[in-house]
Amino acid sequence: MTKERLTLLDTTLRDGAQTVGVDFSLDDKRQIATMLDELGIDYIEGGYPGANPLDTEFFATRPPLKARFAAFGMTRRQGRSVENDPGVAALLDCASDAVVLVAKTWDYQVRVALRSTEEDNLQAITQSVRAVVTRGKEAIVDCEHFFDGFKGNESYALACAQAAMEAGARWIVLCDTNGGSLPHEVERIVRAVTKHIPGDRLGVHAHDDTGQAVANSLAAVRAGARQIQGSLNGLGERCGNANLTTIIPTLLLKDEFGQNFEIGVSRETLQHLTRVSHALDELLNRAPNRHAPYVGASAFATKAGIHASAVLTDSRTYEHVPPESVGNRRRVLVSDQAGKSNIVAELTRLGVALDRDDPRLGRLLDEVKEKESQGYAYEGADASFYLLAKRLLGEAPHFFDVERYSVAVDRRFARSGGLEDAGAEAIVKLHVNGQSKISAAEGNGPINALDLALRKDLGDYQRYIDDVKLVDYRVRVFQGGTDAVTRVLVECADAKGERWSTVGVSANVIDASFEALIDAINYKLLRDGAR
Amino acid sequence: MTKERLTLLDTTLRDGAQTVGVDFSLDDKRQIATMLDELGIDYIEGGYPGANPLDTEFFATRPPLKARFAAFGMTRRQGRSVENDPGVAALLDCASDAVVLVAKTWDYQVRVALRSTEEDNLQAITQSVRAVVTRGKEAIVDCEHFFDGFKGNESYALACAQAAMEAGARWIVLCDTNGGSLPHEVERIVRAVTKHIPGDRLGVHAHDDTGQAVANSLAAVRAGARQIQGSLNGLGERCGNANLTTIIPTLLLKDEFGQNFEIGVSRETLQHLTRVSHALDELLNRAPNRHAPYVGASAFATKAGIHASAVLTDSRTYEHVPPESVGNRRRVLVSDQAGKSNIVAELTRLGVALDRDDPRLGRLLDEVKEKESQGYAYEGADASFYLLAKRLLGEAPHFFDVERYSVAVDRRFARSGGLEDAGAEAIVKLHVNGQSKISAAEGNGPINALDLALRKDLGDYQRYIDDVKLVDYRVRVFQGGTDAVTRVLVECADAKGERWSTVGVSANVIDASFEALIDAINYKLLRDGAR
Repeated sequence: MTKERLTLLDTTLRDGAQTVGVDFSLDDKRQIATMLDELGIDYIEGGYPGANPLDTEFFATRPPLKARFAAFGMTRRQGRSVENDPGVAALLDCASDAVVLVAKTWDYQVRVALRSTEEDNLQAITQSVRAVVTRGKEAIVDCEHFFDGFKGNESYALACAQAAMEAGARWIVLCDTNGGSLPHEVERIVRAVTKHIPGDRLGVHAHDDTGQAVANSLAAVRAGARQIQGSLNGLGERCGNANLTTIIPTLLLKDEFGQNFEIGVSRETLQHLTRVSHALDELLNRAPNRHAPYVGASAFATKAGIHASAVLTDSRTYEHVPPESVGNRRRVLVSDQAGKSNIVAELTRLGVALDRDDPRLGRLLDEVKEKESQGYAYEGADASFYLLAKRLLGEAPHFFDVERYSVAVDRRFARSGGLEDAGAEAIVKLHVNGQSKISAAEGNGPINALDLALRKDLGDYQRYIDDVKLVDYRVRVFQGGTDAVTRVLVECADAKGERWSTVGVSANVIDASFEALIDAINYKLLRDGAR
Repeated sequence: MTKERLTLLDTTLRDGAQTVGVDFSLDDKRQIATMLDELGIDYIEGGYPGANPLDTEFFATRPPLKARFAAFGMTRRQGRSVENDPGVAALLDCASDAVVLVAKTWDYQVRVALRSTEEDNLQAITQSVRAVVTRGKEAIVDCEHFFDGFKGNESYALACAQAAMEAGARWIVLCDTNGGSLPHEVERIVRAVTKHIPGDRLGVHAHDDTGQAVANSLAAVRAGARQIQGSLNGLGERCGNANLTTIIPTLLLKDEFGQNFEIGVSRETLQHLTRVSHALDELLNRAPNRHAPYVGASAFATKAGIHASAVLTDSRTYEHVPPESVGNRRRVLVSDQAGKSNIVAELTRLGVALDRDDPRLGRLLDEVKEKESQGYAYEGADASFYLLAKRLLGEAPHFFDVERYSVAVDRRFARSGGLEDAGAEAIVKLHVNGQSKISAAEGNGPINALDLALRKDLGDYQRYIDDVKLVDYRVRVFQGGTDAVTRVLVECADAKGERWSTVGVSANVIDASFEALIDAINYKLLRDGAR
């Protein structure tokens, strides 16, 4: 059976730039375009040339992409000719293969937001599309508010879409601009539109304001549309755009779509999806969504005792697709509901061989339970769990001893009420291979000072930890009150890009932090085979 | 037209407890159950009594709820009688109104995971449901893997569901346990099931593994199901459960559902949804998802650009529902018009009268924005917001000055590796009504020591704070690394049972904590009219 081709247009660099907290640099844009291209996206919408200097510069030369490079902009303004509209000129002149023209199609909005007439808006669409096509570029028309427009004035919304098609637009894209449409509405309206415009010229652009951007996009495909617009990790204004990171694996791995359609992304490239998703977050300095479908750190994680053993017996029961298919992996979490199977699975993954019948396994399980009853949580602290296991197995060398440490914070307030001094200092005294080392450091807080002092001079081992960076630090306090138990989770990274997490628990946030920092260093030394 | 009633079952406290990184305390469970009850949820599934000591304790006495209080557990084990199954006994004996029994309905899983026979599994369902009903409790049967089961062996899946119904279960809930089903499959299968089981006894339990848990739940309702199971903020195993925080406003505000159905949540209570969502995150020390539909901080945010002016011209174009309907607010990141009304509403709630046209309102708004840009969050710190407003209005007396404070933590390790000393000490020097006071205290951590020293001698005001207790203390660190910004939230209570929350922000956890503690004391003095 021949499969129909679905086309993907990525708008991470354009609609994604509207995400609160996201500011792309030129270099970010180039890197992201390359990632999208390697993934196999058909169209990369790079931005809005003419609207801001960054996008104008990005479109000055065409990046070396296999994908079609698309510029976004508006149809000509009301009361102007296409030739005299600088916005349109910027789109025609820029180094793009395609131009995405956003066009009003909701009569209400033509009147209220544009303060224009229905007729002038139709002409604006026709003339702008013709100008793009005449310049030898492909025209894509994003029909803004199409679903609201269709519900309000069906014939006018259709007239706009048809004007675009007749003027030569390759794609007519139906946009749910405010994100309020529901899947069955989208399906019904797209199906109605296919009576006027062939499905292989129709696209969909959905937003996640009711949490259904993915469902809306797939509903449109079921109704006949053949282009999906979306973004990596669902970046975009308000609640974000349709998440391509979720849509792509669904299209490839779910029979209904996989057996009927093909896309530019192959099963092989799909195995890079998790990495690409995390690389984007890394670039934007955003914490990855652990619960993201397919690519989230928890997407294939199991905590429960009953489910954990079932996952190990037969993964099909609790995994709707194989984690490896999207480059992710199974995680069976060590938790207070832990059983032997969880622990063995986790050890295997961490590269520690231990037989189910080994008596040391029972001791490790007891130790984990004891620690968890004190407040430790190993599910977010692989490296601490690894150390615990290696120590119990007698496979962890003893690298150094801490003799003492002290931390002092001293504050004096000026008469005005402001702080005069905002520092903290720490002293750490260690014994490393018979040598005594004492280091002091200042930091902008007690933990920062302690971290700096601890990693300042580790003698023979210093070269192993020179590239260690503390990348995340989290604190949770249990049972209320300052005298409750404090759990600190620390995440470190090294120059190779490896990351590892450790945990510390104490009544005292300083002690808990110190414990997690010490574990982080010991893990790095152990893993790098320090001697 | 009479509306049909849809029933909501919340599983935040049960399936939500499977979320990686979520550990409920007993007090957390009680607080969350109360929030759910106030929202108008019909069934609150509180946990799995008998499976762990916490849940057993939570089900020892029935919390004072309007909602039905439901315990979760399994049908009787293979080869046991119901009478001899301690798991079933725990469900029968606990203080619940209803019992949710999870039952296998996928023949494949009965064989592979349960290593049982189809017949024994059917009997397990019948006998377990009967036992629950005989004990005078309502039985709800969660049909595990129902959609996979139906696709694999339709008649066996149906036989399981029918066995539950015939044994007297009030609700038969079709579960998409591994989250892999797509909305149209769910719609088709639920519709097929309604030919055998009336829709008003059918429910749906969806997971978000393809990003479509909300769409799957709504598709099931369209096909006839009348109970939706889900969780607040979509907590749950892997990618989470169907997000009730998204589903509830869709059911109330979208015509297709709002005109045909009614739920236990009213339009009035809906206005608390954003607060409830954030309160849960606060309790769990999770960063709220800014992009969450309806309740996210960015759900109604527009970045400067073409959309921003359109939002102000006519909000309908870019807001699919009014933000106030869910207790959220519009954020136009250039000029925030909505801010004033928001602040006036907040002040009114706290009993501070301030006219919309009062010029001091603009100054307060600027101050709040400035503070929020530094990392302060007043949503969880009413008392700090109250103080800020009262000070700006010149209505807060100046009670005392802090001249300095210092904190020291000193640790020495014994040769064995254990800590020799586990204390911390703090000194605080204050000026109160012309008197200088210096106090020192020891604590089991630096914050505890500081808190004790600060409240040791406040001179003339000491009697006002003698009954103050610190009841909760939470820390969040932003932007990763120990040198990031730390936000501390402190909750205090007094002998009258009043509770109030304050916030402090600094690069330094000690300073941030001190700021929040000082606010807490000032609030108490102000509120009690100290002089």
